[in-house]
Order: sequence, then structure tokens, then C-alpha cells
Amino acid sequence: MHFADRLDAAMRKAGSPGVGVCVGLDPVLENLPETLRVTHHEPLRAISEFGSGVLRAVAGVVPAVKFQSACYERYGSKGVAVLEQHALEAATLGLTVVLDAKRGDIGISANHYAAAAAKLGAHAVTVSGYLGPSGVAPFLEAGLGVFVLVRTSNPDSDAVQSHALADGRTVAGMMADLVKDLGAGRMGECGLSAAGAVVGATKSAEGAALRARMPDQVFLVPGYGAQGGTAEDIRALLRPDRRGVLVTASRSIIYAKGERSWIDNIAAAAKSLRDEIAAILR
Amino acid sequence: MHFADRLDAAMRKAGSPGVGVCVGLDPVLENLPETLRVTHHEPLRAISEFGSGVLRAVAGVVPAVKFQSACYERYGSKGVAVLEQHALEAATLGLTVVLDAKRGDIGISANHYAAAAAKLGAHAVTVSGYLGPSGVAPFLEAGLGVFVLVRTSNPDSDAVQSHALADGRTVAGMMADLVKDLGAGRMGECGLSAAGAVVGATKSAEGAALRARMPDQVFLVPGYGAQGGTAEDIRALLRPDRRGVLVTASRSIIYAKGERSWIDNIAAAAKSLRDEIAAILR
Repeated sequence: MHFADRLDAAMRKAGSPGVGVCVGLDPVLENLPETLRVTHHEPLRAISEFGSGVLRAVAGVVPAVKFQSACYERYGSKGVAVLEQHALEAATLGLTVVLDAKRGDIGISANHYAAAAAKLGAHAVTVSGYLGPSGVAPFLEAGLGVFVLVRTSNPDSDAVQSHALADGRTVAGMMADLVKDLGAGRMGECGLSAAGAVVGATKSAEGAALRARMPDQVFLVPGYGAQGGTAEDIRALLRPDRRGVLVTASRSIIYAKGERSWIDNIAAAAKSLRDEIAAILR
Repeated sequence: MHFADRLDAAMRKAGSPGVGVCVGLDPVLENLPETLRVTHHEPLRAISEFGSGVLRAVAGVVPAVKFQSACYERYGSKGVAVLEQHALEAATLGLTVVLDAKRGDIGISANHYAAAAAKLGAHAVTVSGYLGPSGVAPFLEAGLGVFVLVRTSNPDSDAVQSHALADGRTVAGMMADLVKDLGAGRMGECGLSAAGAVVGATKSAEGAALRARMPDQVFLVPGYGAQGGTAEDIRALLRPDRRGVLVTASRSIIYAKGERSWIDNIAAAAKSLRDEIAAILR
């Protein structure tokens, strides 16, 4: 199934056609619920149970989850095995699966990264485009969606992405044009492309300009809330038809505090953010 | 041990102070020696035995090896386990280990990628700098060397890296300045920084200019030979003291044909390239 169509269907099912929340699973041992850290002396067992709980808590509430590959890779092959387990559980629960791996290579290596993501059951991958179109195309050719890093939400991304080119664009604008070109032949029936972009919510001034450059792209949007992105910032990223925005939130959801069990706290935080985003983007 | 000093010592031991060959392990099942493919029905068993053979063949001949992470990741967690085995074997054989993973993330994710590389026993990692300095610094802070993607050898890298900035630099030149700045406080006793750069040999016109921008960096240099890079191209990348170039070659070494066993063919190809590079850069 075409990635944009799959995501579109999942957004409809979650009650917010065209927009949605993607819960980021960035499990870090020190932040897990105390009950899990006490029960399991083995970090990976705690992370395994935690991730399964998060997935059950958010399934049916949000359309998509995003796995931060680094948090699993730090435990080596055994950590990657837990990622495999979580990705399978997510897909089984009907969640759209984004692998946040920020891969970027060319030729046979890019093909292999795409094969790795497909084997994992991911529907889309975050990708760096610094190597050029041939670093991105193999993922699309493998039938995956991509979110190419265009404008990230970390403050010092300016040191690379904000530079002005001689032709009047910024580096981020140039990358946006590259994504648009890559995505042109890969439109889903829903009218969005399988080639999406990472565009942070903390750069509101640029948001509308990047949307104008990438009319057909789904934006994966970090930076809302804790990182400073406002409702206004994410509104600027919508298409004229009020679609194409997938707001991603990690720590504010998966480490949500509250009066109930940790799983119920997570479910409540996910519902709260879902409703907040739906209201903003209505 | 500081990465540049470790590499410098390994280059001296391999008989070519200041320069050297890095053999790239990009194992792809279809290209493995027939004898291995026939013996092992399980792809990973063939790759495991192949990699061990390559490492034994090149240890003592070249200072460094580079593992293409994608070729292992495509087999999931079991593939990563073979990478762990190969990295351990390489370090045990005294080889300097570069993890060619082209990682690039920020904050806690970058810390985790660095932890993953350190756990693997890698001495350096290839890194994308598109997210800015905070995507690279965590690897250096973890005690690893880095090779930041500055100018890659694939033809369509021009679509990103060759663009002229308004300030007169190219995108690649801007990335080079970022690498120089990141590396300034991280010099080894040998006079080279732990922050190196990937600079392809196929862009000779730019080579000397990038060297001028990055006087303290070790260059990891793909593209020599099969990809079109000439002796002249790699000479342009040397420092004035004739140091700082690590030429990487993968398929031409690990799939070398010949009259002898596949391991002996690999050893002969590695020796031949080592002598060729030493003669060029003398």
C-alpha cells in the first residue's frame, strides 16, 4: 500500500483526517517507570515491556508511531531484536510505523538500508539527503515512504540549514526542492507523495515558505510544545486543504506523569495531544 | 587512545606513515566466493566466514578496515550480531575500525549512536553533519573519531554539495569549515584531529581547496580507481607534510579475482593497492 494512502487512512481512523500525532518511542532506561526498573534488572527487558505498553496505550488513539533506532542500537544486536519485536507489535496493532533512523547512503548500501527497514516492517524511514537524490530514491523504490531531513528543530541546525545560497534559496529550501522533485512521480490516491519531509515546528517564519515549496509532501513535525513550537507554528505547515501534517511527540507522551498506571497516563497524554492538535488544525 | 594517534600508529606499522589504505567490508551475498555460497545455505553464515577471512587477509597489510553497516543491518538483529563479531575480530587483529554508518542525529539520540559504536568496538564513525554541530559533537565527546560527510564520490552529490552559497563557499566548503571548527579542540599528539572528513577522490578540482579549509583533518577518501579517482586526485588531498589521507577501497579488494584461494587473492589485492598508494603519496 502506498505510504501516504496508508497514513491517510490511519489518520481518518484516528478521527483527524489529514493531520495526526505520531508518538515517538525513544526509550531511555533512566526515564522508564520505576515499577519496570525495579522489576527488571536487565535494561532490555524493561525497555521491551515498556515499549509494548506504550504501543497498546496509543493504538487506536494516534495513527502512527516513530521508533528512535539509536535507543535500541545502543544495546547492540540484542537491542535491535527488541526493536524488531516492537515494530511487529506496532504493525499488528494497526499503527503506521516510522523508523527514525536518519539513514543516508548511496547505491547498494542505500538498497540495504531500505531492505533492513522493510524487513523490520517499517512503512517509512527518516532519511538524510546530503548525498543527493541517489541517497533517497532507493527507499522509495523499495516501496517505503521517506521523511527527508529538511529543517530540523534543534537550535544549531541553523549552522547548516539556514545558509543562503547564491540563487536566493536557503540550504533547507534547496533540500525541499530536491524532495519535491523526488516525490513528483510517487503520488498516492490521497493526493500526497510517498516522499515527505521533516520540518520542525520551531521555525514558524520558514514554515509557510517550505510548505509552498513542498505542496505534495507530508511533513513530519518535531518541536511542538516542550521544544517551543506553537499552534501558530504548526498551522503554518498545513496545506491549503488542511492536510499533510504529522506532529511527532516523544517524551511528553511516553513519560507522562499522572495519578493512574503508567500505561493509562500515556494513553491520557496521547488523547490529550491528539485533541489539542485536532483543535488547532481544524 | 586518541583516534588520530591510533590511526597514525597503525599507518606507521603498515609501512606508510601518514597515509594508508582502509579496506571496506561491504559483504553482499551474491558477490561472495562460490565456495562459501555452496558451503553455507544460510546467508549470514557465509557472510560471517567471509568477513573473518577478509580480516585475516588484510591484517598486517593495511592499517584500517571500514564496515558498511547497511550490509549487516539488512539481515536484522542477527546481521548486527555478525557485525559485532567482525568488529571484535578486527580489533583483536590490531586493525583500526571505522564504522561506516553515516549516522546523524542530535541530543540523546546522537549520544546513543555513539554508545552503540563504542560498544561495537569501533574507533571512528562516518557521520552526516546536516543537523549541525550538535549532530557530530556527541561522537567526539564519547572518545570516538568521526569522518563527517563533506564531499562524497557519487556523481549526483553535486545536487546538494556543489551549490554556491551567497558568501562564496559551496555547501561542501561550509561543511568543511564546520568540521574544522569541531575538530579544533581535539588534536592528537600526531598533529591531526579526531574530527576527520569524507572527501571523495573523484573531485580533484575541489580536493586542494578542501584540504586548505581542513588542514588538521584526516580525509577518508572513497572513489579511487574503479570510481574514476586518479593518483593526481588523491595527491591533491595530502597535507603539506604528506600526511592525512586514508584511501578506502571495498569491492576491488574483497572480491579480488586471481589464481589462488579467495583469501590469498584478497591479501594480494590489498598489498598491491597499499604499494600503489604508498608510491603515489611518497
